[in-house]
Amino acid sequence: MRNIRLKLAYDGTNYHGFQRQDEAHGPTVQGTLESVWARLIEEKITLAMAGRTDAGVHASGQIVNFMTAARIPEEKIPKAFNSLLPRDIRILEAECVADEFNARWSAKWKRYDYLIDNKRVPDIFKRLYASHMPIPLNTDFMQQAAAFLEGRHNFKTFAAAGGDSKRFERTIYRCQVREEDNRLIRVSCVGDGFLYHMVRIIVGTLMEVGKGRTLPGEIPEIIASHDRKRARMIAPAHGLTLVHVNYTDESPFEVFKELFK
Amino acid sequence: MRNIRLKLAYDGTNYHGFQRQDEAHGPTVQGTLESVWARLIEEKITLAMAGRTDAGVHASGQIVNFMTAARIPEEKIPKAFNSLLPRDIRILEAECVADEFNARWSAKWKRYDYLIDNKRVPDIFKRLYASHMPIPLNTDFMQQAAAFLEGRHNFKTFAAAGGDSKRFERTIYRCQVREEDNRLIRVSCVGDGFLYHMVRIIVGTLMEVGKGRTLPGEIPEIIASHDRKRARMIAPAHGLTLVHVNYTDESPFEVFKELFK
Repeated sequence: MRNIRLKLAYDGTNYHGFQRQDEAHGPTVQGTLESVWARLIEEKITLAMAGRTDAGVHASGQIVNFMTAARIPEEKIPKAFNSLLPRDIRILEAECVADEFNARWSAKWKRYDYLIDNKRVPDIFKRLYASHMPIPLNTDFMQQAAAFLEGRHNFKTFAAAGGDSKRFERTIYRCQVREEDNRLIRVSCVGDGFLYHMVRIIVGTLMEVGKGRTLPGEIPEIIASHDRKRARMIAPAHGLTLVHVNYTDESPFEVFKELFK
Repeated sequence: MRNIRLKLAYDGTNYHGFQRQDEAHGPTVQGTLESVWARLIEEKITLAMAGRTDAGVHASGQIVNFMTAARIPEEKIPKAFNSLLPRDIRILEAECVADEFNARWSAKWKRYDYLIDNKRVPDIFKRLYASHMPIPLNTDFMQQAAAFLEGRHNFKTFAAAGGDSKRFERTIYRCQVREEDNRLIRVSCVGDGFLYHMVRIIVGTLMEVGKGRTLPGEIPEIIASHDRKRARMIAPAHGLTLVHVNYTDESPFEVFKELFK
């Protein structure tokens, strides 16, 4: 048996999230990958995934792994998968890794990006990948607030009910807010792990700051409250993209220098 | 009666082109706009449009106009339209113009952009707006070839059958090829008018040059041949976007300085 690691990208618009579940909800990325493999190789696999993205969330660098007895050379796996996958899922890389590698548990840190289309009239071509907010947001305030989130904290305030985490301490290495194009705002979050809906709740809170409804200086107290009711806003799923999962000892600063400017 | 000019953007993915036609083909942008107006105002209008984009072609700056007896102030028209339009069409501006203004016949020049995703594995998030070409393209050759297209020429070589033009002389002010992101190539064409499928045939020809199958120096002779068989390749519709239509005496150089660098 070989342990195969895949890097993949997908447009989450048409999927009911990554994780396989009752099919009545609609197709999932995991279910689609597993059934394509069954068609290719006639082998039933179970994928482990780095980030269980919600319905509508995208990925440009999701990582999964699975054990296989198939003899297909790993360099041929992306093309084989892509020949049968729908056009909104693409396998970017495949490699053979050590048996103990697990896409979820071996991850050292991850990067998620959230896009906000802050134009008055939404940009048609961003509508599937950015969340539209017509109220003008103050990105300076948002960046000041984001800086308070960096470091090791108990993030219970920012964890939605329904997650399976019992410990709420996480480290955010970087939370950057940038207007990268005319009124297109990118929030990048790099951390050693994220609680259920945590990035979307962080972005929802930063948007309240951007509107002037919450002051940046209130963030430390909101974190310390451990009270979910203090961070009520959850940003829509379709603005979120899982960008990168890191398994080496490289620091985010080495991999994403531009985020630390 | 007032003559109303609209600027609009649309994602052409789900439309059978701009121009209204037999509904059996599927929805059109024109049909959608006219029926939304009928719901808003109970008035039957007929839109004139600057560019009759084909099925699958997008627009970020399409211009249309129509005569109306309705009293709705023009500044309220975008919001009224957008409240009923599907999310893949947005009205960006509305203004009252002179009676003799016609979106098609009053246009002085237009800009179309064509995006080519030249990555080996297609970028999921560009798949609806860029045409994927896995064979590496030489953009230097493509730019050399594009330069030969600039100026006033008989473009019969680049006109698909089925157009209604009897004269084939057109002026291309600028045809620029740029790699704007990692293996994302933008071809921008600015001209006083374009024949049926002309931009897509130009891009198809430039892609042949990019692959090394046609030399840049062959372009003048291909133009002079007036022979459609010399430019066989037509680039797919979904890479094309109508960016701008100009009605003033401003030159493309004034409006799009960055294209002339």
